[in-house]
Amino acid sequence: MKPWKTLTRELVLDFNRWLRIESHKIELHDGRVIEEWPWVVIPSFVDVLPVLEDGRILCMRQFKYGVGEISLSTMGGMIDEGETPEQAARREMFEEMGCEAGEMVFLGKYASDANRGCGLAHLFLALDARQVTAPDSGDLEEQELVALTPAELRAAFMAGEFRMLSWAALVGLGLMYLDSHAPPALGQENVI
Amino acid sequence: MKPWKTLTRELVLDFNRWLRIESHKIELHDGRVIEEWPWVVIPSFVDVLPVLEDGRILCMRQFKYGVGEISLSTMGGMIDEGETPEQAARREMFEEMGCEAGEMVFLGKYASDANRGCGLAHLFLALDARQVTAPDSGDLEEQELVALTPAELRAAFMAGEFRMLSWAALVGLGLMYLDSHAPPALGQENVI
Repeated sequence: MKPWKTLTRELVLDFNRWLRIESHKIELHDGRVIEEWPWVVIPSFVDVLPVLEDGRILCMRQFKYGVGEISLSTMGGMIDEGETPEQAARREMFEEMGCEAGEMVFLGKYASDANRGCGLAHLFLALDARQVTAPDSGDLEEQELVALTPAELRAAFMAGEFRMLSWAALVGLGLMYLDSHAPPALGQENVI
Repeated sequence: MKPWKTLTRELVLDFNRWLRIESHKIELHDGRVIEEWPWVVIPSFVDVLPVLEDGRILCMRQFKYGVGEISLSTMGGMIDEGETPEQAARREMFEEMGCEAGEMVFLGKYASDANRGCGLAHLFLALDARQVTAPDSGDLEEQELVALTPAELRAAFMAGEFRMLSWAALVGLGLMYLDSHAPPALGQENVI
C-alpha cells in the first residue's frame, strides 16, 4: 500500500487565522494525478478530560456554533504558536476550568477529516486534577462546568450527548483508559 | 444558556461538490454581533462498524489523504441525495466491504468541528453482518479488509491506531455498546 504525494499547493482563500483554503495537486498510489483537491487549513487543537481527585470527570455544557445546540462537551482549544500540545492542554484547562493536574495521559493525535484536513486533534486525559481558581476562559460562549461519575459519563456518551467528534472520541478513549487502570475491585486487593 | 442566531449567510468560495465556504453573520447569546464567521460546507457522511456473525469486527486498513499515513479505519462515505443515513450506511457497507447486515444500531449524529461546520457524521454499528460478495467501492484509495476480535479492536483503539476522529469515536461507542450487550459469561447462563 503506497501513500499519495502532494505535488503542489495553492492558496485559494485566506479567510482569517482560523481558516484558509488550499488547492492541492496530488499523485495517487497508481500514478494518476488529481489536479484540484480541496484542502481546509484549520489550526490544530487539544481536547482534555480532567479526572478529579474524587474520581469524577470534569466536563462542560455549552453552546457551540458548529454543533448548533447546547451539548455536553470536553474542554478544548487551539494550540498557540510555540506551544507543545501538552502545554496547550494544561493552559486551556487552567483558563477554561481553573484546573491544574498531575499526569497528562496522551491518547493520540487524530485527523478531523479523512480527505480535506480541517485540523488535527490531540487528546488528553488529565489525572489528579483539582480546581485551584475560578475559570476565566475569555471565550465567546457561555460555559457551565459539570462533574460526572464514570457511570454518568458512560451513560451520556452512549446516549450521544457529546455531540462533536473530538469530544466523543476523547470520552470513549478516556473511559476505556480509566476502566483498564481501575484499582482492584473490593476484596481483590490481596489476590496474588 | 441561549443558542446563537445566524443572521445572514454568504457564499465565499464554491470549490466543488465536496467543499463550499460561507461567511456567516452571527448574533451571540448576549446580543453582540460577529460580522464574518467562517463556515465550511462539507457533505454529511456515515461511518459503519460491521460485527460479523463470529463476533469479529470488520475494519479496513487504508491510506487517506486527510490522515497522511496508512491507518486502521472504519468504513465510511457520503450520504447521497434522497438517502437516509441508514440507507447510506447499508449501501456503503455493501460497496466497500461486500457486506449485508441485520440490525443497524444508530450511535448518534456528531458535528465534525465545534465552530465551523465541516460536515456531520452519523455513526452505526451493523449487527449480524456477513460478506455476500467481493467489495467494489470505486474509491480512489487502496483498501484492505481486516477482521479483529473485540480484544484486538480495543488494543488498536487505545494505541491510537484509528487516526481519524469519526473512526475513533465510532470504535469507542461500538466497543462500549458490545460490552454492555455481551452475552452472559461462561457458566452464568443458568443463573436466575
